[in-house]
Amino acid sequence: MYRLMYPMRTYLIVSGHEEPNVMAADWVTILSHDPFIVGVAISPKRYTHRLISKYREFVVSVPSLEMLKDVWIAGTKSGPEKLKEMSISLVPSTKIKTPSIKEALANMECKVIDAREYGDHTWFVGEVVGYTYNKEAFRGNKPNLKFKFLAHSAWTDFVTFNEKIYRA
Amino acid sequence: MYRLMYPMRTYLIVSGHEEPNVMAADWVTILSHDPFIVGVAISPKRYTHRLISKYREFVVSVPSLEMLKDVWIAGTKSGPEKLKEMSISLVPSTKIKTPSIKEALANMECKVIDAREYGDHTWFVGEVVGYTYNKEAFRGNKPNLKFKFLAHSAWTDFVTFNEKIYRA
Repeated sequence: MYRLMYPMRTYLIVSGHEEPNVMAADWVTILSHDPFIVGVAISPKRYTHRLISKYREFVVSVPSLEMLKDVWIAGTKSGPEKLKEMSISLVPSTKIKTPSIKEALANMECKVIDAREYGDHTWFVGEVVGYTYNKEAFRGNKPNLKFKFLAHSAWTDFVTFNEKIYRA
Repeated sequence: MYRLMYPMRTYLIVSGHEEPNVMAADWVTILSHDPFIVGVAISPKRYTHRLISKYREFVVSVPSLEMLKDVWIAGTKSGPEKLKEMSISLVPSTKIKTPSIKEALANMECKVIDAREYGDHTWFVGEVVGYTYNKEAFRGNKPNLKFKFLAHSAWTDFVTFNEKIYRA
């Protein structure tokens, strides 16, 4: 019944150095504000699991709706060969050797500070040591909803946010 | 720069037995499918932190847009007295002593299986041992977007999802 937590934001996780891999992940959150720490749950079956375990780094990238086809490939195919089918460009990160995604709305460069087994996934905890972002997409230090931030609703179904802001 | 991860879904966290408390939390995710495990990051400054540490239980509740005023109170005021200002009804959970929220779209009843310090927050990990949900809101084991699932965009700003479904 984990669908009770959905819709959830979808992110892309980049891992590896010379032969990087990209996977889609919904089970991602913030763990600390200062220092900025994030966590991502990854199945031990995933190739990304092996790469993060080896290099102790990963990048959390923020895809937009325009990247949906790439997100789908990243989420359903295994191994770095899928990069050939994707249209994203991997570019150097600012602080780590794992690359960032040029087209993403933001890239958070993480160094692994902890890894725990919880049930059928490994929880990788990363301190964000560098980041890049689209200035228009986060104008005024908040998301600009004209950019279509992507969320996963179920299986094949993705959604985005209504631009209307509600205040209590 | 944790705003780069936003918008994020907003949940309500219920804790305590005789004098329960309710707080709003965005930093929540799924950690495992089978068993169903979730995690929530809570500042040690929060009253909820004390209650979860004491009772080793919490409930993750899923608010809708209609509950925005209550979410705002839960997120900005401290201590169980705020319950008097809120219009939610606390009802017995099915498997734990911490109550659930009647008006919520879903309630996940969690027993704490781990607690870790990451930066300025404690990461409480809970196995979901019981749950209740609005059958219409999760028809066919997926979110029904006619129900307005709530997300936090920035500070005072909340958003919900567009009903349009995208597929790759």
